[in-house]
Amino acid sequence: MARVARAWYVLCESRELGQRPLARELLGVPLVLFRDAEGKPGCLLDRCPHRNVPLSLGRVVPGGRLECRYHGWQFETSGRCALVPGLLGGSETRERRAPACAVREAHGLVWVWGGLDQQPDAEPFALLPLERGYARVLRRVAAEGTLHATLENALDVPHTAFLHRGLFRGAGKKNEILATVRRSADRVEVEYQGEPRPSGLVGAILSPSGGTVEHWDRFILPSIAQVEYRLGRESHLTVTAFGTPVSDFVTHLYAVVDFRSPLPNWLVRPFLEPVALSIFRQDATVLRAQTENVRAFGGEQYMSTEIDLIGPHIWRLLKQAESGTLGSEETSVERAVRFLA
Amino acid sequence: MARVARAWYVLCESRELGQRPLARELLGVPLVLFRDAEGKPGCLLDRCPHRNVPLSLGRVVPGGRLECRYHGWQFETSGRCALVPGLLGGSETRERRAPACAVREAHGLVWVWGGLDQQPDAEPFALLPLERGYARVLRRVAAEGTLHATLENALDVPHTAFLHRGLFRGAGKKNEILATVRRSADRVEVEYQGEPRPSGLVGAILSPSGGTVEHWDRFILPSIAQVEYRLGRESHLTVTAFGTPVSDFVTHLYAVVDFRSPLPNWLVRPFLEPVALSIFRQDATVLRAQTENVRAFGGEQYMSTEIDLIGPHIWRLLKQAESGTLGSEETSVERAVRFLA
Amino acid sequence: MARVARAWYVLCESRELGQRPLARELLGVPLVLFRDAEGKPGCLLDRCPHRNVPLSLGRVVPGGRLECRYHGWQFETSGRCALVPGLLGGSETRERRAPACAVREAHGLVWVWGGLDQQPDAEPFALLPLERGYARVLRRVAAEGTLHATLENALDVPHTAFLHRGLFRGAGKKNEILATVRRSADRVEVEYQGEPRPSGLVGAILSPSGGTVEHWDRFILPSIAQVEYRLGRESHLTVTAFGTPVSDFVTHLYAVVDFRSPLPNWLVRPFLEPVALSIFRQDATVLRAQTENVRAFGGEQYMSTEIDLIGPHIWRLLKQAESGTLGSEETSVERAVRFLA
Repeated sequence: MARVARAWYVLCESRELGQRPLARELLGVPLVLFRDAEGKPGCLLDRCPHRNVPLSLGRVVPGGRLECRYHGWQFETSGRCALVPGLLGGSETRERRAPACAVREAHGLVWVWGGLDQQPDAEPFALLPLERGYARVLRRVAAEGTLHATLENALDVPHTAFLHRGLFRGAGKKNEILATVRRSADRVEVEYQGEPRPSGLVGAILSPSGGTVEHWDRFILPSIAQVEYRLGRESHLTVTAFGTPVSDFVTHLYAVVDFRSPLPNWLVRPFLEPVALSIFRQDATVLRAQTENVRAFGGEQYMSTEIDLIGPHIWRLLKQAESGTLGSEETSVERAVRFLA
Repeated sequence: MARVARAWYVLCESRELGQRPLARELLGVPLVLFRDAEGKPGCLLDRCPHRNVPLSLGRVVPGGRLECRYHGWQFETSGRCALVPGLLGGSETRERRAPACAVREAHGLVWVWGGLDQQPDAEPFALLPLERGYARVLRRVAAEGTLHATLENALDVPHTAFLHRGLFRGAGKKNEILATVRRSADRVEVEYQGEPRPSGLVGAILSPSGGTVEHWDRFILPSIAQVEYRLGRESHLTVTAFGTPVSDFVTHLYAVVDFRSPLPNWLVRPFLEPVALSIFRQDATVLRAQTENVRAFGGEQYMSTEIDLIGPHIWRLLKQAESGTLGSEETSVERAVRFLA
Repeated sequence: MARVARAWYVLCESRELGQRPLARELLGVPLVLFRDAEGKPGCLLDRCPHRNVPLSLGRVVPGGRLECRYHGWQFETSGRCALVPGLLGGSETRERRAPACAVREAHGLVWVWGGLDQQPDAEPFALLPLERGYARVLRRVAAEGTLHATLENALDVPHTAFLHRGLFRGAGKKNEILATVRRSADRVEVEYQGEPRPSGLVGAILSPSGGTVEHWDRFILPSIAQVEYRLGRESHLTVTAFGTPVSDFVTHLYAVVDFRSPLPNWLVRPFLEPVALSIFRQDATVLRAQTENVRAFGGEQYMSTEIDLIGPHIWRLLKQAESGTLGSEETSVERAVRFLA
């Protein structure tokens, strides 16, 4: 298990956070999100300091304070207790704070810093603005897997021919592929050369006229899995998935899908979405079963080969970030690996 | 957590204990209740000493013994094993006891002493006989809360304006109220002065013509919460709730409601009962959510103010009773507190 | 709790193991069974050494190897990893084994040795071939009980008059019965003399014309419960139940029922099976309740009498087998006990 607390994680989409408080969990800790009078989001520990009732049971009162359901204590997004109903004599000024998390809102996502009452030492990952001719779709998937297992699954190539047989990669003739792994301080990238056009449905939709394939997989700390495909001249797909460690064995992925295609979007999406959904369902099934075994046997006991190109790097980067030793190893390493796919 | 074992608790209503054994849990221990040939209730550990099968799966045989479902061993209410079927040669006289609890039956309730094979050093709380013109109703409610949290909830005034908004106390203009807290060796009483007639439905039903309010809340060891209201000349309501610590996080309340009202009972009860039920449901919801947080965070972490008039006293009395240090502090303290309600 | 790992246990019937891998649990360990190209059964730890996904999610490929669902690694029944798809350069020869259990198939049952990568030091219990005029039925029942509790239940006589009242033994006049207990190194046998014909349905079906009864109950290590009845000249019934310790509190019994009866089989079975099913349901209910108490109280706390003829012997033999001290006590003891039934 790797737990990186000092980092930004996506807790919800902007559109999910309206007038009502929203309960979320991050790294096993219950949190509550709400918006103040100006619409700025805040995030508190979801436990009233008075009698420990979840603040998410309450409501946001006019003025943008979060009111506890039990005794009506009111909290600002800073965590300051602004009112203890019934108490005489300046009760409002006392320090009866609810611990708070730093919050950012960008790209239609609400980000929360993974520690209570901490000053962030960085800003969330900035998505590039959408270029002309591209469409963007936002999706969340939930997996019963550790952060590491879920991110490796999102970036792992060899499993696609088996777990997603027929959907993603076929079982036909195999090509030798050259993968170049580039590691730097906070990320790892794998570039694939010689990859045939994906067979099956996905390929037919993305690149109807065939053509060459350019393909990169990237892991970026603390929890970002990015897959980029260029097929032929016109198709370009980038999936940037932000992993949220809900608890040790539950991970959510907020995926931002940017794509350009020779076909119109209204034609592509009805085909692509059911396929993507089937792939997620197959991944979720395997992750849940994997997690059951990991729990039953008291931990992961993995036996990697040289074609597990990215998983061991994710693990090392997460453990470095967890222990605060990031950048202590040599970085900017590049390595080439050949395999069949 | 406070666990007071050496005390009387209500395990069922008299009418619930008929011809069949009744399984109950007290302080996490499974118990079985049954009546002997004279109808006197007994209470044994719900585990046959022979093969550990719950005795409550069995039946009461003619003669008032409890027969185990598995091998037919028979037990008297004293716990004595009176028969091992098949065994030759005086088997009935041997000591193969099932541990037993002392039992009392009064006021339509069956009380059990919270320790196995112990001699009680007191008698259960005696209710006063019902006066002329009063009606009595008996109700049980179940809460997923500790004994302390459930009893505080039953006696806590400030939460009523928030959790029971509209049902119990309104959100209108507030009055300054004087509360007098009186502590003695085994109890604490709070008397309220200056309290307006309850607004909302409850007030309208109890005191249609208005009038002054007299109000006392009492906690009496080991687990009794008593609320007494006098409204105007004619309305008088006393709720005496006996708390049963089923397990660490489950508490049952056996509430005896005595009341006199200017309106006839047949008119009052159809109005009062749905309101009381709604109140209990709201309390149960908050107690369950509070308990989840208490368990997730490894204990209660409360931040009380001076208007938490009774909860901290309940806590101290329970802990004194648990550790056997009752009466070691100075008693008969009286303190006045002002607040808005 | 007694856990005997170095022994053979039945994991499934032969007919249950077809083209698809079969997930089973033994002593709390997840295992997967499958057949190789020749139809020979194999058994591996149900966890791929690569990413810990259960191999039972996969499929058996032509050639009789088990293919992991996630990345397609292929395993032989020996546990040898024969293929890592995509890996270049002799990957198939490397040792990436899945731990394996020894397997035997006989009497329509598949037996597995209770340790990974161990050489068995014995062979499974051999059933005698079915004699002329006999019929054989194979049945599995599942109980929520320890191996010891489930086997004692299968062989215990005194409970039948209570738990199975009306079905198995009546509540009528009792006879004095002589039981002779014979112990040897790996087993215990009880022979009953003076037993009346079973009353109730079972007796009426098995021995319509009455006659004397001969009855033996046997426990044979590691987990065999055998009941043999001869009624009159013609009826003969032997139930040999192989106990499988699925986990600490779940036991399966694979029962082989051999019988000869004066009535034709097509007439006997429709009567006998519903009765047997009712008996198993009653036993399962009591075992589940017993197990709940055993878990709640942190272990079995039994109070046996001299008419618990076989349970204490089962316990001692299991504990001797577990600790490897079998045969250290004097064996071939014979003891007579009288009781009423």
